[in-house]
Amino acid sequence: MPKISRKGINMPESPIRKLVPYAEEAHKQGKIVYYLNIGQPDIKTPTIALDAVKVHSLDILAYSRSEGSEDYRRKIAKYYERNSIHVTHNDIIVTTGGSEALLFAFGSIMDEDDEIIIPEPFYANYNGFSTASGVNVVPVISKIEDNFALPPIEEFEKLITPKTKAILICNPGNPTGYLYSKEEIKKLTSIVKKHDLFLIADEVYREFVYDGISHYSILQEPGLENHAIVIDSVSKRYSMCGARIGYLVSKNKEVIKTALKFAQARLSPPTLAQIASEAALETPQSYFDDVIEEYVKRRNILIEELEKIPGVKVAKPNGAFYCIAELPVKNSDDFARWLLESFDYQNNTIMVAPAAGFYSTPGVGKNQIRIAYVLNEESLRIAVKILAEALKAYKD
Amino acid sequence: MPKISRKGINMPESPIRKLVPYAEEAHKQGKIVYYLNIGQPDIKTPTIALDAVKVHSLDILAYSRSEGSEDYRRKIAKYYERNSIHVTHNDIIVTTGGSEALLFAFGSIMDEDDEIIIPEPFYANYNGFSTASGVNVVPVISKIEDNFALPPIEEFEKLITPKTKAILICNPGNPTGYLYSKEEIKKLTSIVKKHDLFLIADEVYREFVYDGISHYSILQEPGLENHAIVIDSVSKRYSMCGARIGYLVSKNKEVIKTALKFAQARLSPPTLAQIASEAALETPQSYFDDVIEEYVKRRNILIEELEKIPGVKVAKPNGAFYCIAELPVKNSDDFARWLLESFDYQNNTIMVAPAAGFYSTPGVGKNQIRIAYVLNEESLRIAVKILAEALKAYKD
Ligand SMILES: Cc1ncc(COP(=O)(O)O)c(C=O)c1O
Ligand SMILES: Cc1ncc(COP(=O)(O)O)c(C=O)c1O
Repeated sequence: MPKISRKGINMPESPIRKLVPYAEEAHKQGKIVYYLNIGQPDIKTPTIALDAVKVHSLDILAYSRSEGSEDYRRKIAKYYERNSIHVTHNDIIVTTGGSEALLFAFGSIMDEDDEIIIPEPFYANYNGFSTASGVNVVPVISKIEDNFALPPIEEFEKLITPKTKAILICNPGNPTGYLYSKEEIKKLTSIVKKHDLFLIADEVYREFVYDGISHYSILQEPGLENHAIVIDSVSKRYSMCGARIGYLVSKNKEVIKTALKFAQARLSPPTLAQIASEAALETPQSYFDDVIEEYVKRRNILIEELEKIPGVKVAKPNGAFYCIAELPVKNSDDFARWLLESFDYQNNTIMVAPAAGFYSTPGVGKNQIRIAYVLNEESLRIAVKILAEALKAYKD
Repeated sequence: MPKISRKGINMPESPIRKLVPYAEEAHKQGKIVYYLNIGQPDIKTPTIALDAVKVHSLDILAYSRSEGSEDYRRKIAKYYERNSIHVTHNDIIVTTGGSEALLFAFGSIMDEDDEIIIPEPFYANYNGFSTASGVNVVPVISKIEDNFALPPIEEFEKLITPKTKAILICNPGNPTGYLYSKEEIKKLTSIVKKHDLFLIADEVYREFVYDGISHYSILQEPGLENHAIVIDSVSKRYSMCGARIGYLVSKNKEVIKTALKFAQARLSPPTLAQIASEAALETPQSYFDDVIEEYVKRRNILIEELEKIPGVKVAKPNGAFYCIAELPVKNSDDFARWLLESFDYQNNTIMVAPAAGFYSTPGVGKNQIRIAYVLNEESLRIAVKILAEALKAYKD
């Protein structure tokens, strides 16, 4: 029997999926499971986007241009303009989700065995894309005590080798919810310029920032034009994760030219989804205001309730819709499984994401979980109550 | 300025795209261009597929399962059953086009510097996917004199090294239109079993077979279960290239398990497109009968007319909607460009794909072009007439 590749063997399993069979089993036992583990929001997609595909007038569902239709890219450039980011449609490649933008970025700037420095905890699939691209993730630890702020720049410098090609940040962060300040971006700027590295910023949660703080994109930083690559996506912004539309944005013409070759090989991003996503750009501001209000409310409830639980420590997120909580347990993998397998509170339980999967350093984050606040207020309160009861009952 | 990767530099440009600026210029000059260069059919998408998305009742456009929705995969398995291919939904991963299925297959079975043997001329993007995956294409030449039949099995054996992991065929072939016989599949079977290799068959044109010959899938070949990986797609079958839905199909559980990890990293195939593609499975047989009749008519006209042109040699295709023609020119790259830049026949010209881009051996195929018969009868007649006039006028 022919053999699977080493790469294929090394491809990580999603840290969340591992628990799915236990959740299914809990269901079968008749338990009600509250899902705090996923990044699929419960927020409705703007009707303007959903309706656009209902009235399409296509008679041939044809390939679009590999870089996305020009009309759509021009409108995306205007969207950025409204957000004080000055790019043209030529700086944008429409991709199949932010996921594909990450793959194109990695492929365009790194070869086998090259290194990319990423503050951890980080979005787990960065591991998958790195493995698929044959490159090595070099983690730099950010700490719950610091709210997961940018680690000191010296920590980055210690890790830079001739193989280092890029630093990748997620801003605001999944799973941390941390929003980098302008000063932190400037620190990163100085280091990537000094060492001639790329700076990739995954800004798919750009719109989800709270407490009156504003988001500072790496594309706004002067002098960073040739270093900055932004990963973006409609998935969370318009709660249309299933569309599979994202963007790779860079002022570096070589990067765009190269990423375009990857885009051409796979022919075209999805055409129906581009229709929906182009329409989504017309979503009224009130939609976003409501969504932000909702997330702020949820975050406040979540943090407040979590802080009441003895032994629980939580980083207060300023963005995205995740937070990391440290629990009084030894191994959150075991705890998460136990929640589904062996625990119920009035026939309810919760599914959480053990945080170890968001770290690349072995052994770190073992007592942490990621909570996604993608449930409404009432469900969220119940879910935290279940967590509190579970921690009372749990014995390591 | 930070540097692009070697991989990025090596990513091939699409052999077709290179000519696009010249075609645009011809347009500006007021010329009418007949496009014989693209694989985007002019055939209408089944209305059942287009209508399905018009009546969707989603209020959240959510991620689907990474492997595609179970309902959809069960229906795909039934489709294969109807085509005498026995697979279950667990043997199928829904991908973002056949393109992504190729990437997942390459990633699952090959590491950096591994080798894949492909009869050339072949679908040009196999080069791109190989470069993106860090693997090397080892071509084995098939000849226009033989109608591009499978090269003798000894030619394959000569090329096998410890790094060889797979043989890839396209059946029926783009750009050759050649349909492999059952005997040829059996020859390939013996060689992949002897050397413990994977056999990948790109069967995206499976439905497009003519002259009463039937398609023999590698999934029908007994004993090949652990070796066979099929790449499939809705793009051409239902003329819905813009959907971006394909499948990776294999009875080898390790392959599926591994490809699923790649699928999970990118989260989900497009959800709207799955709705359209699931509906497309209900397309009535009459649709396909009409399409096949149309392609047979076009092929016959094309071949007949091409054979009338002095110095033109053409391989008769039994499948897909492409053919390779040898022209009395030294360099079809120059000729194709000249057609757009400097030639017109009553203000008309044609755009063709120089065949060199479909070969990986340098210098081969330089006097060949690929013609896609994706134009209606009348346009096709005009296009061949233009070619004949152009060849009269052209001086190398
Ligand atoms: C930080 C981050 N980046 C990228 C993605 C990829 O999203 P998509 O491919 O749906 O755009 C996600 C999805 O959860 C994410 O959380
Ligand atoms: C032979 C072959 N394989 C695969 C593809 C990829 O098609 P898609 O990604 O649209 O399924 C094509 C498209 O032209 C093709 O001709």
